Amino acid sequence: MSTYKHILVAVDLTNSAEHVMRKAQQFLSTNVTQLTLIHAIDYLPYMGFGETALITPTYSIPNEELISSAKQPLEALQKKLGLEDNELVIELGGAVPAIVQYADENNVDLIVLGSHGRHGVKMLLGSTANGVLHHANCDVLAVRVHD
Amino acid sequence: MSTYKHILVAVDLTNSAEHVMRKAQQFLSTNVTQLTLIHAIDYLPYMGFGETALITPTYSIPNEELISSAKQPLEALQKKLGLEDNELVIELGGAVPAIVQYADENNVDLIVLGSHGRHGVKMLLGSTANGVLHHANCDVLAVRVHD
Repeated sequence: MSTYKHILVAVDLTNSAEHVMRKAQQFLSTNVTQLTLIHAIDYLPYMGFGETALITPTYSIPNEELISSAKQPLEALQKKLGLEDNELVIELGGAVPAIVQYADENNVDLIVLGSHGRHGVKMLLGSTANGVLHHANCDVLAVRVHD
Repeated sequence: MSTYKHILVAVDLTNSAEHVMRKAQQFLSTNVTQLTLIHAIDYLPYMGFGETALITPTYSIPNEELISSAKQPLEALQKKLGLEDNELVIELGGAVPAIVQYADENNVDLIVLGSHGRHGVKMLLGSTANGVLHHANCDVLAVRVHD
């Protein structure tokens, strides 16, 4: 039924990730469709007030550690939903550029992500759903999640 | 396959309406799903510069005429896509409140609409997709259309 061939599901580490992934899964049952999971780690190292603060962060978590701490819960969720064979992409950096760039470079024709609506905290910060909607070159399914 | 039971498709009178409707149709094939079409006529009567301009518009098209002129091309499109038995709702007023209110009052769980992206003229005016994304209480599928 689905006209989509490559679906990109953006997942965060909140409780809503499972809900969003299940909504994306509905596109899989009747078609040969590729489904890729993407998670962006928007990590800002702690900048101290010392002399060198403008040059190097005073404390930062190594990238490998950041990636592995995100990987564990996401892989567990993949297994729970039977999606353990689907590719999981973890990017360091802002969610919007990471999602849009991956979609552009990999012929993604549908991006599925959670949307917190007008009441969510994310709304104040400029939501990922909003940014992706403006910048993506493909369809976007915003799955309503409740804070 | 679809987990959606009532889908609301927002259509305008541009060439993109057929593309958006076809994307919404993909949800119909394997499930008992209700699909409703909605079109909002955001009509601002011409206000003259005369003395009475602030009280009454100097020229306005009757509502019935507005509705029937929108109905014709939309009904033709319904027929073309085999959707002539699906309900067509035509509302006078802003698209965002019309779509969101109808969705809230009719247990709509997915809104499908066209999105023009960052380059579209609609972006400058604040796009319908953007407004609906912020205000809807259900999922939103933004179908990328090209200007």
